[in-house]
Amino acid sequence: MSYQYLTNTPLDEAVKNYLDALSAQGLNLGDERIPTQDALGRVTARAVYARICAPHYNACAMDGIALDARITFGATETTPVRLKSSDYTWVDTGDPLPAGCDAVIMVEDVVEEGDTIILYSAATPWQHVRQIGEDISAGDMIQPSFTIITPAGMGAMLAGGILQIDVLKKPVIGIIPTGDEVVLPTDNPAEGEVIEFNSTIFSGMLRDWGYTPKVYPIVADKPEEIRRALEIAADECDGVIINAGSSAGREDFTAAAIRSVGEVVLHGIGIKPGKPAVLGMVKAPHKDGVIPVIGLPGYPVSGIIVMELVFKPVLNALTKQRTETPAIVEAVLSRRLNSSLKYREFIRTRLGLVSGKLVAVPLSRGAGVVSSFVKADGIIDIPQEREGYEAGESVQVRLTHSMEEIRSMLVVTGSHDPLLDEVADLMRHRWSGSLVGSSHVGSMGGIMALRRSEAHLGGIHLLDEASGAYNIPYVQKYFPQGGVVLVECVQRTQGLMVAKGNPKNIQGFADLAELEFVNRQKGSGTRILFDHLAGQVGMNLDSLRGYNREEFTHTAVAAAIAAGTADAGLGILAAAKIYDLDFIPVADEQYDLLIAEEALELETVQQFLEILQSQAFADRLEKLGGYTLRNPGRIIKWH
Amino acid sequence: MSYQYLTNTPLDEAVKNYLDALSAQGLNLGDERIPTQDALGRVTARAVYARICAPHYNACAMDGIALDARITFGATETTPVRLKSSDYTWVDTGDPLPAGCDAVIMVEDVVEEGDTIILYSAATPWQHVRQIGEDISAGDMIQPSFTIITPAGMGAMLAGGILQIDVLKKPVIGIIPTGDEVVLPTDNPAEGEVIEFNSTIFSGMLRDWGYTPKVYPIVADKPEEIRRALEIAADECDGVIINAGSSAGREDFTAAAIRSVGEVVLHGIGIKPGKPAVLGMVKAPHKDGVIPVIGLPGYPVSGIIVMELVFKPVLNALTKQRTETPAIVEAVLSRRLNSSLKYREFIRTRLGLVSGKLVAVPLSRGAGVVSSFVKADGIIDIPQEREGYEAGESVQVRLTHSMEEIRSMLVVTGSHDPLLDEVADLMRHRWSGSLVGSSHVGSMGGIMALRRSEAHLGGIHLLDEASGAYNIPYVQKYFPQGGVVLVECVQRTQGLMVAKGNPKNIQGFADLAELEFVNRQKGSGTRILFDHLAGQVGMNLDSLRGYNREEFTHTAVAAAIAAGTADAGLGILAAAKIYDLDFIPVADEQYDLLIAEEALELETVQQFLEILQSQAFADRLEKLGGYTLRNPGRIIKWH
Repeated sequence: MSYQYLTNTPLDEAVKNYLDALSAQGLNLGDERIPTQDALGRVTARAVYARICAPHYNACAMDGIALDARITFGATETTPVRLKSSDYTWVDTGDPLPAGCDAVIMVEDVVEEGDTIILYSAATPWQHVRQIGEDISAGDMIQPSFTIITPAGMGAMLAGGILQIDVLKKPVIGIIPTGDEVVLPTDNPAEGEVIEFNSTIFSGMLRDWGYTPKVYPIVADKPEEIRRALEIAADECDGVIINAGSSAGREDFTAAAIRSVGEVVLHGIGIKPGKPAVLGMVKAPHKDGVIPVIGLPGYPVSGIIVMELVFKPVLNALTKQRTETPAIVEAVLSRRLNSSLKYREFIRTRLGLVSGKLVAVPLSRGAGVVSSFVKADGIIDIPQEREGYEAGESVQVRLTHSMEEIRSMLVVTGSHDPLLDEVADLMRHRWSGSLVGSSHVGSMGGIMALRRSEAHLGGIHLLDEASGAYNIPYVQKYFPQGGVVLVECVQRTQGLMVAKGNPKNIQGFADLAELEFVNRQKGSGTRILFDHLAGQVGMNLDSLRGYNREEFTHTAVAAAIAAGTADAGLGILAAAKIYDLDFIPVADEQYDLLIAEEALELETVQQFLEILQSQAFADRLEKLGGYTLRNPGRIIKWH
Repeated sequence: MSYQYLTNTPLDEAVKNYLDALSAQGLNLGDERIPTQDALGRVTARAVYARICAPHYNACAMDGIALDARITFGATETTPVRLKSSDYTWVDTGDPLPAGCDAVIMVEDVVEEGDTIILYSAATPWQHVRQIGEDISAGDMIQPSFTIITPAGMGAMLAGGILQIDVLKKPVIGIIPTGDEVVLPTDNPAEGEVIEFNSTIFSGMLRDWGYTPKVYPIVADKPEEIRRALEIAADECDGVIINAGSSAGREDFTAAAIRSVGEVVLHGIGIKPGKPAVLGMVKAPHKDGVIPVIGLPGYPVSGIIVMELVFKPVLNALTKQRTETPAIVEAVLSRRLNSSLKYREFIRTRLGLVSGKLVAVPLSRGAGVVSSFVKADGIIDIPQEREGYEAGESVQVRLTHSMEEIRSMLVVTGSHDPLLDEVADLMRHRWSGSLVGSSHVGSMGGIMALRRSEAHLGGIHLLDEASGAYNIPYVQKYFPQGGVVLVECVQRTQGLMVAKGNPKNIQGFADLAELEFVNRQKGSGTRILFDHLAGQVGMNLDSLRGYNREEFTHTAVAAAIAAGTADAGLGILAAAKIYDLDFIPVADEQYDLLIAEEALELETVQQFLEILQSQAFADRLEKLGGYTLRNPGRIIKWH
């Protein structure tokens, strides 16, 4: 099997070279004339000049009387001027200034005595008159070329008598999904089928940027079919995305397809994720110049990164827009991050403001983990020449949420329990826009985050083997000086999750020896509980298959068992229920909340506690199953 | 005539009271189920939980071979492991992990020898495998309630097997334009007709915010008709805007119409512009609760301000979104601003970064000047308790453009000439997104702005009466220490603009005595030229009618003459041509550019000068007429 090597061009150089190559061949969109009223968000193709003045006549700017200001000259409190009805005209705002008049006096200043009007102060010429062209004079340039049209811009053009304008055509961007394994979205995919949702993501990004996506049918991994699809799309679109097959594996035909129709400018960018991108161009059959054709990697995260960092500047060049530099903030890294010297790396991260410092909690680096983009508040940008950062170091983060949202976010770091998401959801029902950012790092991870002032609160369920007590001994040990408050949350049942019907007839820990286990990550309360219980029955953990296979959530353990890749794992009833697994209860434990003392008075923390004590929360736990509520929200004394 | 007094409720209190009143009656939108692929920008009506895992099977994460990791244990550089073909399976990225395998070795690490494969290092279990649920586990909450759906959010939901989701209905907001005088957009309105472009502006704002506007036909100023229109809109929409008639004049029926169908919560807000707003609600015939009905002032600027500050928070409450605080910056005010203690005032302003300080150059305060919103980079927010600010004081500005745009903007302050807009337009053709912010304050205003380091450059055409020379004597006088560069721009012809056919037979200044003149503002080069020429012929300026009527641009003067409200004014040929006026040349003058020395090396200034010397610029001036180009861009020695 042959292996093609890609280039490792630095990002900025790749974008510049690509733009230069496209510009040299010509990037043209063409114009169209549309009604001004339909032009929101479109781009002017040329400067727009007013055809008429606004206002187009001298208009009264107040309700009152119009007159020739000269007849009021000399009026004062002591020497009022009296006007007869032929001296003035009653007018409303917007009325044309009557002939012979050059001023309006507002109704509040007009004293009527029968037909006579008495004025106690003089008018100045042109007062309360909107003179012709006050807003816009005919001939004035209302908008220069290549301006994105705003609501006020539409108003100004209509005021200036512009009923139709020339705008750049709205770019149509073709998206060609490829792959023998990809299938249209389904809720029941067969093993080996990959749900094709990338085109939905890319379409959404294009729409957000003001372009029109055009998604083509899925094309099989056959060079000739990909080439045909590209030819059709190039004929119908102003740019084309071929998704997947952009790497150099045995079924990666994108680069070859582009080469057979046009030219590959560059294949391979020194970024991670996103390295195997193909930047190409094809002569546009329907217009002058070329159209950009980009091969995006198949993993959604890689695709999104290349769309944002490479394709967006290209589309901006097409529509003559500047590419805005993303908003960058400095944040303190919550844990160590390694990075290769081979790439500039982009890592999704949660952000939160804790104790006045902005904390970055990195999310999964997996290129297939699209949910990380849903959770992310920003993207850590690690330069190529860095081997990584230590915990506590300052990193550069590109914001994907507003700083206002980030500032208001409740930062929850600790043990995973689905109840955290339920509380967050209930908060949004009661307080619009309420935001909770949860990171699942296990109970010990939560304790460490609170010690470093990197979280407002965290869930913990830690059994102290010596005393048999939950949580309090750990808090006493790790917070000898105080600084935290322990708050009762729930009692929950832990048990062995096994396949439906318990085919291996597992009754307890003693039965696990010859089976395939799936564990939780080190530092998680569930793993500590497992070790404790296994120790009680004298299990040899070294010989337990799968003991080192780590998952980060109860549901992930349940999923592994449901799929048949493991026989058993320790977890909570709620997770077993979701996956329709059998459940052998082994212990009831105390899942509590550790809250930074200085965060206790935060509005969001108080709201969190309020929800904990609500009937709505009790109802949701009832549905999940396996929980007991005694005094949620009660502060537990521990020193 | 009766005059109703409005309340003067402070803005924050008005919004709070209005929201409280609406909430007390219930603001409900209702849900609908739509395909996930169509959900971009919509708002989840409830929490979305994954139905399937993503990936939904253990998937190979690399091209290579899959195997049971145990058979590789012990492999090193010196003790390689040899595998026969039954030990492994070739796999591509995305393939299901074959039964019995728990690891993938990437193709780069595989050494083939016929059918045998040699491995020089051991695999660890689960390496290069995307385990079931790595991204999302079935049952996980993918998005909480009331979340705006992003491209990645759509992807995550499709990955989780969610093909349809429940979203809040997209609010339909009815817009009822009212007024006997308003007409549909036209380029040939009759006197007294007001072009109805407000509904286009409000529609655009609603679309930008994610709502669906529904514009109703224009309704006459008849209470019964407005009431009928409101009833229909309330039946069809989730909110209603009645535009104009919101004040308390004799034809202002909005408050009464709302009262006849529902309730007015508040009439009159302590802001300027925007005071005469009506905040009301009507029982929703088609659902539980009420719908907000708002009466907006007729002036577009007032309407926009009330839309943004009052209606947007209401719509956010409807869709359960937080209202983001606008980005605020501090800027140095370029000129004095007075403000009434009666109102909190909002004044559109240009912003620019000059000599490291952010300068605010306030725009027209006229509530009818919609073009000011097109030019504005921000809005100065003057608290009610302030009587104003002195020039040089720091003010709070709400940004309407990004700081990056503002930072890159070339700040041009000085004499008005249409050539400035032409240069700005040509710059955008050559350099995408190039921005020039011009303020027309006259030649002397430009000199003062440069002295205060509040502009990068300005146009001046100042005649020194003593020497008869242009510009240099002024620069010598006002910049004795240097700090500026004078750059040749154009020679242009000034003349008297008079009505087509010159009906009053004006041949020169001597003929102006008995006529209606229209002047330029104090400090403008044109006014100084006029005074000089008038002095030469011994005119008595005090007796010249219209001498104190001031316009800020050549085109505004031409517009006044074209409309017949003045007989003559001094200006340039280009303006006379646009309005088809007769033109009596009186002087050729030098229009030059004064550039701050420290700005000379700025990219934008260099670009400006490059355009000045281009053929494209010469061609545009040729079209405008009345200009002579000698050595545009030449630096003029003056000290």
